[in-house]
Amino acid sequence: MEKSFPKSLIEDDHLREVAERVFASALGSEDSKVELSLFDVAVDCPIGDREAKERELMKVAVEPTRGKTTGRKHLLRSFTVDPGLSQVGTLDSVPLVSSAKSALVNVPDFQRVAITGDYATGLSMEDVQHAAKGLFQAMAIREKYMRLSFQRFPCTTSFYLRCSENERWKEEDQVLPTFTPPPKPNEDPFSTEGAPDNLGYTARMNDGVVHLYRSQENDAQIYNLPYPHLETFITDMNVLLMLIADGPTKTFSHRRLKFLESKFHLHEMLNEMAELKEVKAIPHRDFYNVRKVDTHIHAAACMNQKHLLRFIKKSYRVDADRVVRVKDGQPITLEGLFNSLHLHPYDLTVDSLDVHAGRQTFHRFDKFNSKYNPVGASELRELYLKTDNYMEGEYFAHIIKEVASDLEDSRYQHAEPRLSIYGRSPDEWNSLACWFLKFRVHSPNIRWTIQIPRIYDIFRSKNVISSFGEMLKNIFLPLFEATVNPQKHKKLHVFLKHVTGFDSVDDESKHSGHMFSTKSSKPDEWTTEKNPSYTYYMYYMYSNIMVLNNLRRERGMNTYQFRPHCGEAGAVTHLLAAFMTSDNISHGLNLKKSPVLQFLFYLAQIPIAMSPLSNNSLFLEYAKNPLPEFLQKGLCISLSTDDPMQFHYTKEPLMEEYAIAAQVWKLSTCDMCEISRNSVLQSGYSHEDKVIFLGQNYLKEGPEGNDIRKSNVAQIRVAYRYETWCSELALLTDAIKCTDD
Amino acid sequence: MEKSFPKSLIEDDHLREVAERVFASALGSEDSKVELSLFDVAVDCPIGDREAKERELMKVAVEPTRGKTTGRKHLLRSFTVDPGLSQVGTLDSVPLVSSAKSALVNVPDFQRVAITGDYATGLSMEDVQHAAKGLFQAMAIREKYMRLSFQRFPCTTSFYLRCSENERWKEEDQVLPTFTPPPKPNEDPFSTEGAPDNLGYTARMNDGVVHLYRSQENDAQIYNLPYPHLETFITDMNVLLMLIADGPTKTFSHRRLKFLESKFHLHEMLNEMAELKEVKAIPHRDFYNVRKVDTHIHAAACMNQKHLLRFIKKSYRVDADRVVRVKDGQPITLEGLFNSLHLHPYDLTVDSLDVHAGRQTFHRFDKFNSKYNPVGASELRELYLKTDNYMEGEYFAHIIKEVASDLEDSRYQHAEPRLSIYGRSPDEWNSLACWFLKFRVHSPNIRWTIQIPRIYDIFRSKNVISSFGEMLKNIFLPLFEATVNPQKHKKLHVFLKHVTGFDSVDDESKHSGHMFSTKSSKPDEWTTEKNPSYTYYMYYMYSNIMVLNNLRRERGMNTYQFRPHCGEAGAVTHLLAAFMTSDNISHGLNLKKSPVLQFLFYLAQIPIAMSPLSNNSLFLEYAKNPLPEFLQKGLCISLSTDDPMQFHYTKEPLMEEYAIAAQVWKLSTCDMCEISRNSVLQSGYSHEDKVIFLGQNYLKEGPEGNDIRKSNVAQIRVAYRYETWCSELALLTDAIKCTDD
Repeated sequence: MEKSFPKSLIEDDHLREVAERVFASALGSEDSKVELSLFDVAVDCPIGDREAKERELMKVAVEPTRGKTTGRKHLLRSFTVDPGLSQVGTLDSVPLVSSAKSALVNVPDFQRVAITGDYATGLSMEDVQHAAKGLFQAMAIREKYMRLSFQRFPCTTSFYLRCSENERWKEEDQVLPTFTPPPKPNEDPFSTEGAPDNLGYTARMNDGVVHLYRSQENDAQIYNLPYPHLETFITDMNVLLMLIADGPTKTFSHRRLKFLESKFHLHEMLNEMAELKEVKAIPHRDFYNVRKVDTHIHAAACMNQKHLLRFIKKSYRVDADRVVRVKDGQPITLEGLFNSLHLHPYDLTVDSLDVHAGRQTFHRFDKFNSKYNPVGASELRELYLKTDNYMEGEYFAHIIKEVASDLEDSRYQHAEPRLSIYGRSPDEWNSLACWFLKFRVHSPNIRWTIQIPRIYDIFRSKNVISSFGEMLKNIFLPLFEATVNPQKHKKLHVFLKHVTGFDSVDDESKHSGHMFSTKSSKPDEWTTEKNPSYTYYMYYMYSNIMVLNNLRRERGMNTYQFRPHCGEAGAVTHLLAAFMTSDNISHGLNLKKSPVLQFLFYLAQIPIAMSPLSNNSLFLEYAKNPLPEFLQKGLCISLSTDDPMQFHYTKEPLMEEYAIAAQVWKLSTCDMCEISRNSVLQSGYSHEDKVIFLGQNYLKEGPEGNDIRKSNVAQIRVAYRYETWCSELALLTDAIKCTDD
Repeated sequence: MEKSFPKSLIEDDHLREVAERVFASALGSEDSKVELSLFDVAVDCPIGDREAKERELMKVAVEPTRGKTTGRKHLLRSFTVDPGLSQVGTLDSVPLVSSAKSALVNVPDFQRVAITGDYATGLSMEDVQHAAKGLFQAMAIREKYMRLSFQRFPCTTSFYLRCSENERWKEEDQVLPTFTPPPKPNEDPFSTEGAPDNLGYTARMNDGVVHLYRSQENDAQIYNLPYPHLETFITDMNVLLMLIADGPTKTFSHRRLKFLESKFHLHEMLNEMAELKEVKAIPHRDFYNVRKVDTHIHAAACMNQKHLLRFIKKSYRVDADRVVRVKDGQPITLEGLFNSLHLHPYDLTVDSLDVHAGRQTFHRFDKFNSKYNPVGASELRELYLKTDNYMEGEYFAHIIKEVASDLEDSRYQHAEPRLSIYGRSPDEWNSLACWFLKFRVHSPNIRWTIQIPRIYDIFRSKNVISSFGEMLKNIFLPLFEATVNPQKHKKLHVFLKHVTGFDSVDDESKHSGHMFSTKSSKPDEWTTEKNPSYTYYMYYMYSNIMVLNNLRRERGMNTYQFRPHCGEAGAVTHLLAAFMTSDNISHGLNLKKSPVLQFLFYLAQIPIAMSPLSNNSLFLEYAKNPLPEFLQKGLCISLSTDDPMQFHYTKEPLMEEYAIAAQVWKLSTCDMCEISRNSVLQSGYSHEDKVIFLGQNYLKEGPEGNDIRKSNVAQIRVAYRYETWCSELALLTDAIKCTDD
């Protein structure tokens, strides 16, 4: 594979113009401030309608379907699962798609929903072909960006992409990330021994992206790294912007999604008991002992409120006389600190601690953020929830270790907490690495992710930094330096082995109004106090991670996933940026607003870590959360807690999250185990871990990859999902090939 | 107070006729089988409407109210809280009602909602007076039945009843139950020493009610016990049946309830932050460490599914070779038992255990009941979840002790599990008492209740008993015998000290079609295979408990509360029967169907133990549960789990119940603590316990009785509730007095 960023040139002014209009209208609709009403969820609570829907569906199932064949052309092949063989590609290279193959991999018989007869969507064939082409073009764009950055793209989708291009999919084309395997017995995960040699390269940032050079003196660029090409990115983005606003594609996507939902309802009615039977027959495995990963949780709020309260009280009993702070050169003891706040820890309650999101925080991200301060005192936040304080983050490390030990006790629960890097100074990485090594914060039930808040504007207005470029340098240069010369940056090198990805965080409902284009100021020239747009941040995060991953892969080191917060609020363009750049996302609520993006997220099976309890306190009421709908359609959903300190009540926040979802949405065991399995797949756990959690074949897509003895997900369910996915992809492929006739 | 059951004669055929029509129509509407649609809850999810509602209310609050004074007569007095003094009764005997008095008991200032100007409901004054008279008559009926049986009736309501009768309320009139206090240090709660002497009476059942006689030979009835009078009960019941169907009373009650709801919304908007401030200021007390009682939980399902699974596995590891059963004279070991079921405990999972209510149980009480059998095997139910098996209930006792020990660890969580007495044979009580004493099943965090399933029809069809009278004898005669002669029934005597009440349980949606009247067969003549009606059961349960309580009170023993399941499904007449006979109820969902009963439950503050998660699996979807609405209106609501084994996922089912309610309905800390406080008040914990849990004055109604340092309920909230309640009662009193002018 050639290591270069394939370029394209913008010549199409029309394209840019339309893209700008779409962007403006996306912003516009968001400006109207009635954000809630924009979620076009049914007003009813989802469980409410179920019975009525099922009755209707049953009727449909009994009567033969007589589709209205509007504008039908000549796509005569039935596009649902074709038992026996697929007509695309030769059989041996076909990913498992047919029910005949399903039988080979031990899927029990189940009732399949087959739509026979001519293809008829109520759309003209031209429109379908147009939509199919657009959707495949979009997926090809995502495939390109994922491969370039060692992020994941499903091989089933790649297979159909190649088909539509009349090419052959090759297994070698699949690109996979590298995560650090768990330490071997007697191996010290904190050992700074054996760091690789210095490559001698020099890292310098050009236009916001780190470039590597032979040496300080030699300006020869390291050739085999794929540096990004801004113009190409912008062109690709504009193509996608046009696509999501394109009428026929919107209609088509909307119909396919509705179809997917109805088809699942039918599947459920027909096979629910069969799935249950499968799951019941598996010895020793149930929802309680399948692996589940909390795929989105902030380290600073990973303990619940009661836990934090107890920790504060305990620290006071033990450490009252200890100096915990220096203010104006004066040492302050813990007792002194509490005296200055006029409170005694014994009297503290979860009420006075006041870190729980209440009714007051709904649609008020600003109020929510201040909840991070216990008793409203930023001193306590600094002392208990930060790594860089006078005590070098000792309390924070202890709290996290207690959380980790609770997870270890539970055995099957894992978490991926996020630690912050702000980009205020180049030293942040080092101090975080020192904290990590000093307190030996490592647990088999925890994997680390780095979150980078999008708060350039705050630092700029305080004159902490002079340009956006400086912030990017502070964030990324240390990573390149430690990768080029681990010998010199041993601690950071060790810490980086344990980091699995990057998150980009902030309130998405704030927006800059700026549209990212080739005319946008370059990072070094970005010196205003205005914050760049979400997409601008995404592009520069992605680009640097991409180059970094390529360098690290070459050195045999682990690579990073980009896993931003996306689609919690704000414009749908955020989701578009993530579609191009991110391995997986957190939230994704706004996929409700764009059927095209929602269908693309389905087709590319982009994992989405959803946190309905967090949404319930901030942006969207529980009963209106699209999670059950997404799950039914077959989007790759996992459940996560976001901030147990703010949102949860019990000692097991992740179980609370699952329990409430199960209760309110009446999820079956199979549903819950499917979500758990998704969470493991989405996570940054290493190949070695995933083999233990999910079985030897977990990388295979479809029922072949599901080990029911480990996942407790019925093979019938996985086969249904896989066959349905393949037939959607096959439908698009057929439509495209049709045009060529 | 005279100890006799005041009688009245039926002469009013019209009354009976109308009552029969009402009953028939109540049944009729229920027959239509679209039970769900009968709950006239808004189709929207309750949280959904909140914001819109609040905006509207704000408008109302700003504009001066200009009520339409239709048919107004001469009720000129403002009926809302009258600051300073109440015009009813003399001030010293007035229960705390005015805001001036509120200040005396340490209620912070808050914003009160005052409706000034003439009284105007949109109803004619005649109608209001008519409704007021009917409602007060109904409450007088309840007051009578509660006093006769040593059950609770609030003195505030009694006070206003006396006012309306131009009488004076006296504190001595208040009747309170007696519960056994907790054992003193070094006191053995299981000691059979010191049982009182034999009274020498003879107990015999006449027409379904136990009567006491001087001795076996001497037929002189014990004069000072109030035996019930069937005709009077029927007359009272018919009065109530007419009332709940009376048009003006329905309209009036509906309007008052709507008013209460809106008033609370206003209160919340105006005082939410003030309440929060109060609660925050209380040191060391928060939602986690206020006492909460699980007021409705069945012992046979009081452990969660994971707990039962673990217990089964553990018992197998320890006891595989032990004989646990005898079948056809052959001893069977635990291993043999599992072999005969073709399963190995190691392979068991919560899926194969299959005791969790799934989607399949919704509206299927029959399927739900079979979930009590682990792995579908009644042998396992008998072994693990019963007291009367070959092992004498050893495993069941161990499981309950583990649950109790979890509660003790939590310190602030309590439960009132129900044990079953069926009435199949007179020995049941003794065998239960032996189990209790043998395994010493006692915990400070547990109080016992006895549940009696309404399954006469099953026993009759199997010829286990010959008449309903025999079932009643089996249930009640042993209690009287042990009360008359504790020396002879020492174990039962001790066990009865630890019982606090009786529950009546079964699927309410089954109904007999029989209407209870003076013409109904007497219990001894009830020999058909048909089950008597709910009301028939209620009357005979109540009557026997009433006589028993009077006897026990005379002997200085503890008394019992009647706490039936009521209003979970079925006809509204069930709630009417409970209104007459029961201290408090479980479920109460059907109060939605009858505004009159709902308003009466409010006015008499009858506690309702609600279990929304149980309802969600059986009768009513979570988002449609009326709990938040009831709570806002001021009904006395507590939260309970019903059957953790079937419904809950986490290790702390009661916390799960609270957490989900808090999340889905966005309850504030104050709401949750109010519910917790209600649960303690409702419970069968003794006076001594309640003083510790809620403070010295807990028996006083209104803010005087609330110790915020223990309950964490804002005084503002309690004052609001109390003032609102008093003004509703005062409104009725004024309307009645008006007529007399």
